[in-house]
Amino acid sequence: MITAPVPPLALSLGDPAGIGPELIAAAWTARVAWKLPAFFAVGGAEILAAAAARRGIDLPIARISDPAQAAQAFPSGLPVIDLPDSEFAGAGYTPGEPCRQGAALALASLTHAADLALAGKAGGMVTGPIAKSLLAEVGFDFPGQTEFLAHACGLPMQDAVMMLAGPQLRTVPLTVHCALSAVPGLLTIELICRRARITAAALQRDFGIAHPRLAIAGLNPHAGEDGKFGDEEQRIIAPAIAALRAEGLDVTGPHPADALFTARARPSYDAALCMYHDQALIPLKTLDFDAGVNVTLGLPIIRTSPDHGTAFGIAGKNAADLGATIAAIRMAGDCAMRRVELMK
Amino acid sequence: MITAPVPPLALSLGDPAGIGPELIAAAWTARVAWKLPAFFAVGGAEILAAAAARRGIDLPIARISDPAQAAQAFPSGLPVIDLPDSEFAGAGYTPGEPCRQGAALALASLTHAADLALAGKAGGMVTGPIAKSLLAEVGFDFPGQTEFLAHACGLPMQDAVMMLAGPQLRTVPLTVHCALSAVPGLLTIELICRRARITAAALQRDFGIAHPRLAIAGLNPHAGEDGKFGDEEQRIIAPAIAALRAEGLDVTGPHPADALFTARARPSYDAALCMYHDQALIPLKTLDFDAGVNVTLGLPIIRTSPDHGTAFGIAGKNAADLGATIAAIRMAGDCAMRRVELMK
Repeated sequence: MITAPVPPLALSLGDPAGIGPELIAAAWTARVAWKLPAFFAVGGAEILAAAAARRGIDLPIARISDPAQAAQAFPSGLPVIDLPDSEFAGAGYTPGEPCRQGAALALASLTHAADLALAGKAGGMVTGPIAKSLLAEVGFDFPGQTEFLAHACGLPMQDAVMMLAGPQLRTVPLTVHCALSAVPGLLTIELICRRARITAAALQRDFGIAHPRLAIAGLNPHAGEDGKFGDEEQRIIAPAIAALRAEGLDVTGPHPADALFTARARPSYDAALCMYHDQALIPLKTLDFDAGVNVTLGLPIIRTSPDHGTAFGIAGKNAADLGATIAAIRMAGDCAMRRVELMK
Repeated sequence: MITAPVPPLALSLGDPAGIGPELIAAAWTARVAWKLPAFFAVGGAEILAAAAARRGIDLPIARISDPAQAAQAFPSGLPVIDLPDSEFAGAGYTPGEPCRQGAALALASLTHAADLALAGKAGGMVTGPIAKSLLAEVGFDFPGQTEFLAHACGLPMQDAVMMLAGPQLRTVPLTVHCALSAVPGLLTIELICRRARITAAALQRDFGIAHPRLAIAGLNPHAGEDGKFGDEEQRIIAPAIAALRAEGLDVTGPHPADALFTARARPSYDAALCMYHDQALIPLKTLDFDAGVNVTLGLPIIRTSPDHGTAFGIAGKNAADLGATIAAIRMAGDCAMRRVELMK
């Protein structure tokens, strides 16, 4: 079998004062042990070297000018591509002390990584954790990287679907960063159907699941118990499920949320659609805190991210767990491989 | 060391058409393997024998007239005490087909078990699963057994605190069977403080935890992120925590709920107080579906229950998992032992 040529993955730095850079360095040293696909970092060569040193890693940096050089450089050094604008070359690096200049670097790295992925020069992108409040000060006007990437791809925000994937479970939160009291008002048949279709299509195309099975959670305890506690299941969720089934999708629910994530239930579906943030995140982090991947479905590009924050408190202390970064790189590589195979 | 004489535990049948009776029979056969404390069933001798037979268990029944006879009878047979009213003696037993007469028997068993516990003749009670809708037809006017027992003990319903306990986690849901949209309006500083005090006192008295550590969850994603998504943390939960701390209780929070149940976080507290049903139940069932115990705190009597329903669909089919029943009996026995020790 001839392996298709998969372009290397672009890794954005994330906030330079967070744990992003040290995890890129650590991932490179783990490339053989974890059979990682070739990747390169976007910008921040000095910062990466300093972050590596603080983690006790002797990191050879391979400066490249084009992603096409990454695969050859990868075995002997971490390929780093310069940012088009060199104004960040001298950006300081103080772990745990985020600053405006660092946020600007994080944004430039993210933007350029997305550009390279959109241009097909990167097979996909793995984004490092950012600090949203600081990014807002340098012109980042999005709730998160997921919405930024939808915009960069020219899509409406609601079509970029966040899926959280751990070794034992995949969940899609239909609402995310809003008050719990706002959740019932945000749920619509249209929202559920749209996200379910995008999720099913992405599981087919990028995850190699021929017939994706989606389980849809209820909103209320016991999924409302026939309308006894809340009527969103009857008014919104059940009709959405009926509509999706009529389209031929394999969708079940509304399931009582507390029964949906048991060891017995998990093998019965490929992804669970959840009504709110914690319904999706509690089971995932309860099972596998250090291995969760945030993957964006519905984009023309592949994007994954370790499902953790900047962790400024432990940055530079050689304490950040590498698990989620490894999982995010492997998942992006697998998805990229499948897209290349599909295009053959 | 002289072992204090702990009265035997009273086991109520639960709905006779559910999995309650067969699990009592199976628990008796597991008494030596699991080192179970002495217990007796309240009523339903014929039903227990029939349920045992369907599970392939040869169950000797030891009819007793007083709980004081249970300990001596326990090694060689399942002690069963007759119900004061004999009208259920001939109640039919058809697994999976609940009926009004069965509900009446379930209620009589529950009521008499509570009476024996209140009289000190039983060291505590372990309740089998009931079917609430049928029970309502025979005069049971409570949301569940927890509230029924508060009433039986002469306490206001809100002072009976439901705690779910698994091998790795204990959670206390502050609201239970209500629509998710109703939850924010039900949370008050008073509710949180009252339940936290009862929980801490019970962990001390019944669970032998000298200095109970309580972790209190936020309601909103990221615990509201400083009021960005909802203000219940700032208006209600944080002030409650401050008040509890001022009383000398070891209370932390509000914690982001998705970070509260990770393997790393769980050892940092003895019980988590949760704002709604699924916040408490999702992590527990995700971790240990078959071993969850529902324990009622704040009562003068000890009461535990396996945390599952009647499971009419699998009743009589030798398919019901015994784990939660064993855990409930052991927990009630341990709590009863501690109360006896305290009274010495």
